[in-house]
Amino acid sequence: MSETGLNMSRRIRRTPYTDKVEIHGVRGFSVVNHMLLPKAFAATVEEDYWHLREHVQIWDVGCQRQVEIKGPDAARLVQLMTPRDLRKAHVGQGMYIPLIDENACMLNDPILLKLAEHHFWMSIADSDILLWAKGLALGLGLDVSIDEPDVYPLAIQGPKAVELMSDLFGNTIRDLKYFHFDTFDVLGTPQIIARSGYCKQGGFEIYLKGWHLGDKLWDLIWKAGKDYQIEPGCPNLIERIEGGLFSWGNEFTRDNNPFECGFESFCYLGDDIDYFGKAALQKIAHDGHHQELRGVTFEGDKTPPCGKPFPVTTPDGTNIGQITSGIYSPRLQSNIGISMIPKPLWQVGTPVVVHTPDGYSRRGLVSNLPF
Amino acid sequence: MSETGLNMSRRIRRTPYTDKVEIHGVRGFSVVNHMLLPKAFAATVEEDYWHLREHVQIWDVGCQRQVEIKGPDAARLVQLMTPRDLRKAHVGQGMYIPLIDENACMLNDPILLKLAEHHFWMSIADSDILLWAKGLALGLGLDVSIDEPDVYPLAIQGPKAVELMSDLFGNTIRDLKYFHFDTFDVLGTPQIIARSGYCKQGGFEIYLKGWHLGDKLWDLIWKAGKDYQIEPGCPNLIERIEGGLFSWGNEFTRDNNPFECGFESFCYLGDDIDYFGKAALQKIAHDGHHQELRGVTFEGDKTPPCGKPFPVTTPDGTNIGQITSGIYSPRLQSNIGISMIPKPLWQVGTPVVVHTPDGYSRRGLVSNLPF
Repeated sequence: MSETGLNMSRRIRRTPYTDKVEIHGVRGFSVVNHMLLPKAFAATVEEDYWHLREHVQIWDVGCQRQVEIKGPDAARLVQLMTPRDLRKAHVGQGMYIPLIDENACMLNDPILLKLAEHHFWMSIADSDILLWAKGLALGLGLDVSIDEPDVYPLAIQGPKAVELMSDLFGNTIRDLKYFHFDTFDVLGTPQIIARSGYCKQGGFEIYLKGWHLGDKLWDLIWKAGKDYQIEPGCPNLIERIEGGLFSWGNEFTRDNNPFECGFESFCYLGDDIDYFGKAALQKIAHDGHHQELRGVTFEGDKTPPCGKPFPVTTPDGTNIGQITSGIYSPRLQSNIGISMIPKPLWQVGTPVVVHTPDGYSRRGLVSNLPF
Repeated sequence: MSETGLNMSRRIRRTPYTDKVEIHGVRGFSVVNHMLLPKAFAATVEEDYWHLREHVQIWDVGCQRQVEIKGPDAARLVQLMTPRDLRKAHVGQGMYIPLIDENACMLNDPILLKLAEHHFWMSIADSDILLWAKGLALGLGLDVSIDEPDVYPLAIQGPKAVELMSDLFGNTIRDLKYFHFDTFDVLGTPQIIARSGYCKQGGFEIYLKGWHLGDKLWDLIWKAGKDYQIEPGCPNLIERIEGGLFSWGNEFTRDNNPFECGFESFCYLGDDIDYFGKAALQKIAHDGHHQELRGVTFEGDKTPPCGKPFPVTTPDGTNIGQITSGIYSPRLQSNIGISMIPKPLWQVGTPVVVHTPDGYSRRGLVSNLPF
């Protein structure tokens, strides 16, 4: 957490829940999709972490903007944007889809929600996929409409989320499978709820349609959550790194391809579907890729915040990568982080050195993900 | 200036000058194009304002990312993206160009730099025009390459900028016309310098190519600037609003068309050039637009920060707009701001009321821009 302030303006958009998180004493934000994402409350990241593993939290993730694609050519456009085979996608199923360009470079990694045969939402990470989709559709002359709907996800995360959500929305919500979604009655309106979240502790995301309902939804959850020791929270850096959950822009960027990110199983290379970047991806699959995301454990005192990547070297000082997200895990009693690691060294157990900004060179080991 | 912190991570990219602005005690940032923009130093905004009007400042505006478009179809693609007639654009001239979509909605408002007949940079505001341009080019099958080059503008702004820059880069720099650019020897490398900047006090922008040269360039300017009382600065909110300089995402968004923003003179409606959104724009030109950006002066004590737009009403309480950027001007001895104002009321001198978050309803008047 930096001590430096964030200058607020209309351009850095608020969510329908920002007033609430301010009342709850939010201490810091990040900016995702030109929108505020809370990043710290009164508790430390470690207190937040233990609470998230034991109870239930309410997260303002309104910044997970939806790119809505609908119309006769919607399914065709969505398939053109991702190497994942969408032929078996069915309504009610969320799918994690890498988005790549014509050179197989990663543009984003949203969750795709198939709402109907010709109606999709992409719940995106931090790049303007709306403009990418609109540009492709306009250039190709496709019959689709593309927009950002009035939808703001609110996440209910943690092991007690299922109890809380079934209290509010009925027992059928227990039957939702991981990454699946359905429509529930929320405040007298039909709303999409998915069993999902940027966390490995279980939970739900309510894709609230209607900014004006934000306050009421927050209050509804908050009041019912008191029995479950609910607290306001946000994606927790310790939990996310332990769980091996990546962040576009941090662990990988437009400089990386899906194989480097470990997304091989989401890359269909056959000739019977078509998407932009397939030829480039086939070439990478044939030639091999030369680096891949790995966990790294590293010793010493608790690492300082990783606001700026930490260089990773071999023991003899050769630069090989950088920790793009890193923190101390109180459960594993070790510093942990994520780095691209070049091929000869990406075997689990390979010794490395992590150079933190406090001046220490810390011995480390390449690890599997999740930790 | 909010007291709330900004969570730093690799995704919120640093510029080659971020280390320097941290050494100078930067107090706050905004995020533009996924990159840090300094927003406050040790001085107050008012001290910064007077200094900028009298001396010279060095601004880290590396976040003004370039979208580079080159190749045989580059000129065609650029023209398809803007209603501005680019037939007379010549190498060495910067042009302010609204970018619109097929519905004539504003996507961005960059400065276009024509570097060669088939080679352009767009120096963009805060939306991923790289993805828009790439999507269009891929969909249309154009023969262009589109990328974000290793270029990071550094602005030298204020009335003494011309003396400082001619000391460093020779007297010919005095001959550069406003918005024009040329190549100069900077640290032994050829670099583009434009007479431009997000400020009305005069100055230059060095489009530094080469991240690795950032430290050296900063030091070069800083050392030579001591004779001119140079200080680190950033776009100054008082100066910007007084000067009527808009900010995409603040004063206008994808919900607005260029006529509403006062960009009529940049909209060529003839049939002899083609661009996306022309039919929509012709319709708006024919039917008339119903709101337009205006200045608003408003009374009372110094307004609180405008992190969240201030509602604007008629004297009898009807909602008519919102102040999207507002502050107290010590020179005009009035609060000033910018708002979209509906047609019947946009005449200069129309009385309005501005409702600030400290609970006051302040009498105001519609004003011309610049103030």
